[in-house]
Amino acid sequence: LLQRAESLCAAAHECARRGWVPATSGNFSFRSSVEDGGRIFITASGLDKGAISPGDLLEIDLSCRVLAGPGPLDNLDKVKPSAETKLHGVIYRDRPDARAIFHVHSIWNTLISDRFADDGAVVLEEYEMLKALSWVATHEHRELVTVLENSQDYAALSLLLTETLLENPTAHGVLLRRHGLYTWGESIAGARRHLEALEFLFEVESRRLGYES
Amino acid sequence: LLQRAESLCAAAHECARRGWVPATSGNFSFRSSVEDGGRIFITASGLDKGAISPGDLLEIDLSCRVLAGPGPLDNLDKVKPSAETKLHGVIYRDRPDARAIFHVHSIWNTLISDRFADDGAVVLEEYEMLKALSWVATHEHRELVTVLENSQDYAALSLLLTETLLENPTAHGVLLRRHGLYTWGESIAGARRHLEALEFLFEVESRRLGYES
Amino acid sequence: LLQRAESLCAAAHECARRGWVPATSGNFSFRSSVEDGGRIFITASGLDKGAISPGDLLEIDLSCRVLAGPGPLDNLDKVKPSAETKLHGVIYRDRPDARAIFHVHSIWNTLISDRFADDGAVVLEEYEMLKALSWVATHEHRELVTVLENSQDYAALSLLLTETLLENPTAHGVLLRRHGLYTWGESIAGARRHLEALEFLFEVESRRLGYES
Amino acid sequence: LLQRAESLCAAAHECARRGWVPATSGNFSFRSSVEDGGRIFITASGLDKGAISPGDLLEIDLSCRVLAGPGPLDNLDKVKPSAETKLHGVIYRDRPDARAIFHVHSIWNTLISDRFADDGAVVLEEYEMLKALSWVATHEHRELVTVLENSQDYAALSLLLTETLLENPTAHGVLLRRHGLYTWGESIAGARRHLEALEFLFEVESRRLGYES
Repeated sequence: LLQRAESLCAAAHECARRGWVPATSGNFSFRSSVEDGGRIFITASGLDKGAISPGDLLEIDLSCRVLAGPGPLDNLDKVKPSAETKLHGVIYRDRPDARAIFHVHSIWNTLISDRFADDGAVVLEEYEMLKALSWVATHEHRELVTVLENSQDYAALSLLLTETLLENPTAHGVLLRRHGLYTWGESIAGARRHLEALEFLFEVESRRLGYES
Repeated sequence: LLQRAESLCAAAHECARRGWVPATSGNFSFRSSVEDGGRIFITASGLDKGAISPGDLLEIDLSCRVLAGPGPLDNLDKVKPSAETKLHGVIYRDRPDARAIFHVHSIWNTLISDRFADDGAVVLEEYEMLKALSWVATHEHRELVTVLENSQDYAALSLLLTETLLENPTAHGVLLRRHGLYTWGESIAGARRHLEALEFLFEVESRRLGYES
Repeated sequence: LLQRAESLCAAAHECARRGWVPATSGNFSFRSSVEDGGRIFITASGLDKGAISPGDLLEIDLSCRVLAGPGPLDNLDKVKPSAETKLHGVIYRDRPDARAIFHVHSIWNTLISDRFADDGAVVLEEYEMLKALSWVATHEHRELVTVLENSQDYAALSLLLTETLLENPTAHGVLLRRHGLYTWGESIAGARRHLEALEFLFEVESRRLGYES
Repeated sequence: LLQRAESLCAAAHECARRGWVPATSGNFSFRSSVEDGGRIFITASGLDKGAISPGDLLEIDLSCRVLAGPGPLDNLDKVKPSAETKLHGVIYRDRPDARAIFHVHSIWNTLISDRFADDGAVVLEEYEMLKALSWVATHEHRELVTVLENSQDYAALSLLLTETLLENPTAHGVLLRRHGLYTWGESIAGARRHLEALEFLFEVESRRLGYES
């Protein structure tokens, strides 16, 4: 578990270096195997993701109750999981293969989420980089990244996300408008690969459309 | 105090890495607690902010007199606080909660300050990143960042800044046209969070408007 | 050989830092001298190029059979060379002077490959940076970088690449549409110089054309 | 001398990190004081500027004869100063206060040199960042950066540069079209400050004009 916690923190540090989690934004989690209890380990709210260490992860169950925090147990009432922890719970419930989830706020995912919000989705196709997404074997693949309207009502967002995951069983990520990207993978390395691929594609596609307009 | 001085320098180094304080520009300060004398510690003029250490900070009072410098006391007449130190003094006087102030010159704050100078302010709204600003709980918040005309008359600028702070009691930063951003926070970490959030929003908003024009 | 393997890995790490090999993309190889057997050492598939070390290189012959991998020999059937290894083989066969080959996916090579695909080539001229390409002595040089349509049929791509290398005996690189750049050099340092020069020129030329359109 | 050589190399490394000296381009020099013989120490041709150390500097006189190189003296005929060394010699001759010269190839100096080549100069005004240039005390300053047509005839370029320095006695830098920037300062730190200020201004001004066109 410690090794995976360190791997998650290393991924978070790299995202910080790239400017994808400014101002303490973003959150990162992984799920332990069924033999290890199937628990979720997630970054606590309000921390600089460029400086987190395994001791800053909260242990929660699928219904998002905090089981343990970085400090001693009687401090648990002061440890606050991010409001967005609920969305991690939804993804782990509805994507049984997902073992890690990354949520970041980049310049390009914010821009493209706004540009295509009225269409309901960003369409990515004909790029070799699509092959970095699990099960995709050709650049002729068509990836649909749904854009949900942003909201502070996380219960409502959870329902929207549930529907979206149901309707798009092969999707690798979901965007919140002017907010950010959720992506997941079958391992921490897999989630990181999906994140890097999608962020690359968001930037290329945004710049390409900039030429044309 | 040493710990806070080191934390301030670390924030300055990170700003240098991002290219926000080129050519020895920018300045950074924090204020000690009332019990610690309520004094201001601020970067001296003309130093590369990517290489400063706690010994490069000047200790000044609220009227910007230098109490101590990095060298022995009899060198005080050679130590020069930046002309912009006055503006730090104004902010600390009129924002009693402010404990740290950052001033940086980025590509995007320079561009957006020019673009909206005639309107008098940059308007930022509907971005999730706004929630990184203290007391803001929803992306539906409307943040107004006033743009002041640039000037070398710092006494006049101080008066303009005083008015702006009075008229915009909930503002988190002020721009000087084609010059840079001042932002502050209740702690060094808070000022850094506001800086990263505002710079993110300046870049996103500038790029978004680039599409539309 | 170890020194060259380390030099190759250092080049790969630098490409990762610049964001040119996101999501485990890209591959890197060098060829040992005839006295050293003329074998090819190439990065294995699916690894993060920002974290590879000499032990992650596969040793293959010119027909791309794996001779040795990073693990013990009886694991050879599990070690997978990238599908693109074939293209390295073609370049080494048809460019006897080539001693190293780099393949990267950057934002700008992806964009420019798409923009000029219908023309069949990107034309770079009148830039001083062209002199970083071997045998080029003046900015008045005209460099033609052929753009091949992307395909998952690597046998067909190999034939296309063979033709292109034959028709353009002085070329320093080839683009695959919406996929990436192949470039080579007479040494690892030479391949890196060509890569940095071409990527610089792709970005400058793309931005220059953005002004004009 | 060693300390200044190390300071020069540190500046070169930082330029490499920022992508301003790709593909072994760029060169860096400083001049020792009259008491130290008034000799010039300059980076040798063909090296990666991100990895140079003091031993990679050539010692030359004002007429660009190599006095000593990084290796033993009998290797001097193999050590090659860059063709652009001549231009360093011209600047040191005609700017007696100059103690360091930096020459870099950035994306933005290449773009802006092309855009304003027909006008003969880039005009920078009304930016606070102008105050980072020596003797400039206000953003109301108007800085003229002459653009010379690029050439491989360095004798002719030297004459053009001589004229330009004579006609623009207060200039802080000169651009070569689609090639790069030369800037200088009264110290290594001064040259670096001018470089960072001019590169910042080239990017801001290029992006600002992008909006308007």
